[in-house]
Amino acid sequence: MPRFLVPAAVAAATALLCQAAPVHAQGTNTVAATPTQVRPAVDRAYTQLMAAPAIRGLLDAVKVDHPRTIDDLKLLTEIEAPPFKEHRRAEAFLARMKALGLTHAKIDAEGNVVGLRKGIGGGPKLLISAHLDTVFPAGTDVKVKEHDGRLHAPGIADDTRGLSVLLSWLKVLNENKIQTVGDLMIVANVGEEELGNLRGMKAIFRDNLDIDGMVGLEPSSPGAVLVLGTASHRYEVTFQGPGGHSFGAFGQVPSAIHGMGRAIAKIADVRTPSFPKTTFTVGTVGGGTSVNTIAPDARMAIDIRSDDMASLLETEKKILAAIDEAVVEENRRWNVSTLSVSTKLIGDRPGGRTQSDTVIVEAATRANSAFGHKTLLTGASTDANVPMSLGIPAIIIGGGGKTGGFHALSEWIDVTDGWKGAQNSLVTVLGLVGVQGTSAPLLEKRPPRAK
Amino acid sequence: MPRFLVPAAVAAATALLCQAAPVHAQGTNTVAATPTQVRPAVDRAYTQLMAAPAIRGLLDAVKVDHPRTIDDLKLLTEIEAPPFKEHRRAEAFLARMKALGLTHAKIDAEGNVVGLRKGIGGGPKLLISAHLDTVFPAGTDVKVKEHDGRLHAPGIADDTRGLSVLLSWLKVLNENKIQTVGDLMIVANVGEEELGNLRGMKAIFRDNLDIDGMVGLEPSSPGAVLVLGTASHRYEVTFQGPGGHSFGAFGQVPSAIHGMGRAIAKIADVRTPSFPKTTFTVGTVGGGTSVNTIAPDARMAIDIRSDDMASLLETEKKILAAIDEAVVEENRRWNVSTLSVSTKLIGDRPGGRTQSDTVIVEAATRANSAFGHKTLLTGASTDANVPMSLGIPAIIIGGGGKTGGFHALSEWIDVTDGWKGAQNSLVTVLGLVGVQGTSAPLLEKRPPRAK
Repeated sequence: MPRFLVPAAVAAATALLCQAAPVHAQGTNTVAATPTQVRPAVDRAYTQLMAAPAIRGLLDAVKVDHPRTIDDLKLLTEIEAPPFKEHRRAEAFLARMKALGLTHAKIDAEGNVVGLRKGIGGGPKLLISAHLDTVFPAGTDVKVKEHDGRLHAPGIADDTRGLSVLLSWLKVLNENKIQTVGDLMIVANVGEEELGNLRGMKAIFRDNLDIDGMVGLEPSSPGAVLVLGTASHRYEVTFQGPGGHSFGAFGQVPSAIHGMGRAIAKIADVRTPSFPKTTFTVGTVGGGTSVNTIAPDARMAIDIRSDDMASLLETEKKILAAIDEAVVEENRRWNVSTLSVSTKLIGDRPGGRTQSDTVIVEAATRANSAFGHKTLLTGASTDANVPMSLGIPAIIIGGGGKTGGFHALSEWIDVTDGWKGAQNSLVTVLGLVGVQGTSAPLLEKRPPRAK
Repeated sequence: MPRFLVPAAVAAATALLCQAAPVHAQGTNTVAATPTQVRPAVDRAYTQLMAAPAIRGLLDAVKVDHPRTIDDLKLLTEIEAPPFKEHRRAEAFLARMKALGLTHAKIDAEGNVVGLRKGIGGGPKLLISAHLDTVFPAGTDVKVKEHDGRLHAPGIADDTRGLSVLLSWLKVLNENKIQTVGDLMIVANVGEEELGNLRGMKAIFRDNLDIDGMVGLEPSSPGAVLVLGTASHRYEVTFQGPGGHSFGAFGQVPSAIHGMGRAIAKIADVRTPSFPKTTFTVGTVGGGTSVNTIAPDARMAIDIRSDDMASLLETEKKILAAIDEAVVEENRRWNVSTLSVSTKLIGDRPGGRTQSDTVIVEAATRANSAFGHKTLLTGASTDANVPMSLGIPAIIIGGGGKTGGFHALSEWIDVTDGWKGAQNSLVTVLGLVGVQGTSAPLLEKRPPRAK
């Protein structure tokens, strides 16, 4: 799921306290103002789509297919997909894709399931995706339980709902013989969560230089359009010294813990801009042998995030400099050079932003209007970070259903009327790629990127 | 055992690396100059003692008793005595004391075994002691193994050798009908090691206000006389804040880890005198929930030591102030007051020094000369810290045997000629309390302390 969804405080509480608060109840804070008007071409395309009998038939088919998507949802949810172990779920997803007609679909070298539904040609190539992986380790009970009108299981909303919606779209598009102008590249990707560090999406954009835009599905409230990809870098920092007896070696050796403390004190005073929001914390520390030993080792983990990559890199530079200065100071304190430090990048999520006035955001906004939803522009760290960091238009929207308890064993989805969200997002996608005989593609074809 | 014996570096290495270096190989660093001459009364007393047939007979008996002391040593070593669990060994020691004629010996409320061998009256009351406890936890294999000419077992040297020497002295004194002038208060005490915090010796001096001096037995090299009691205070410091999401709650809450880091940075720059040697270290740290959580908790353990109590207290004051300032700063950084700190004294060893020109040091020096040993004055944290902190003359000397590997499972003793050390220290003691018909007591009677 998005590592963070506005409003900040509620999302944080959700993640930390494992509360089952539905995302759509999160309030109205946004990262940018909702576009108050859209360009005429966007308005025209969605007017045409919503009026076209073929599309109305397609949307009816989404509703009709809804009960079947629940079966897919349960089936996929119950195939565990821990980070770096998404393979079994990928195989199941691939089999469903092939059964639905994408016979050339395959699993790429990174582990992503990739299928291409060609358009009639001349249109853009739009990546539509949901992620295979969950945060839950192997062995977690992923059996779906139904009570209180909800389906409960780890990962069922985040992001297995997205996976099942992609399959439903493929089925109804094929059965209703909808021909798009642009191509739909359908991807069930690995590595969205945690230490996955977006490896799936990084591979997709590394290996496919002709993608013109991306629409990802994640649990979201109706009308939410994620346009900001919070970048993050995480470091593991290890201080090492000779150690020694607290009394006997005093004055002769530096302390790894004192060196780390000096670094933390400097980091604690680093200043970051409020806008673009840029944050840091030393999240964990550990070290030392015993109370009466000058510590030979100490380690800390640092999280740095920003809504803007440049700001993140500037903060990172200050933090890394602070660490180096601290080591120099601790060595100088005892006139030695025996304290050393090593830093290891353990988290690397590029960031970026899809501007509010781009076609892709206007398209989502207009499609939301067609379904009676006011658009809220949000930000977080998601698969969309990768295209955003490359300047490729990308958004994350919902696939329908009320959801909550992400990253907690209490995760749940209420699928009542979930088809409405699936319709809304499908229409968003169709406007972007265009539908033969109905609407021209809105998404611009980009010159292919260089390797 | 003494928490520290000169020279610093070697003792530290011994403790840390579990090397089996015998203490007597530790070199010649001392904490004060060896007295070059002793007052005439001291010289006279030891001349008289060494010449007296009764004492010569007594010393022969020490040698004869030597093989039997090894049996006591093995027996007591194999009764484990972890910190706060010395009771079984205390019972065994008490039984041996009673069997050797001290029928009024008893275990006091703290767990110390206490027996009084009365003198003829009018002399000083000298405490002679060895500690019951070892550093080894319950369940440690304490079976004595004999190889390479050494006896190996955890605690065998530190301080079970001392215990067996006390018993041997009691036996030979009684069997040789030696009447001392002053009283010998024979104590096998608890709580010398680690978190025992000298509880046994603190209780002895709290409950016995008429002790005029103390001679403790610990593994030491021949000629070593411990005259300095390194004081130490240890603190456990806990920082607590509200915690929060690293991105969502940024700017709203303080970090317990950042607060602790600020404190460590300040502590790292505290200045202490080289003489009296005063040291500090933040030995261990831990804290935090995850890399992307603003830490709600952090904790550290601090060790402060000094050869001088006033200097320790001054350093402690600076450190505690640094901690409070750090909390203020971290709260101020975010304009909050939600970070708090609590400090807990977990180690409390008073310190002090027995001056080189006191009778007790001169007595030990003169007795060492009689046995051909040059005296080295050393320092550490031992049971003698307690009387030293009260201004009562106290020294720690060896009981014989080559020893090493203290606080390590590889601890050992080579008892070859160990009776020589037992003779040397017994003569030291006898000079202090005086022997009827041979020598007048050297140790001065003190006015009883007030409660």
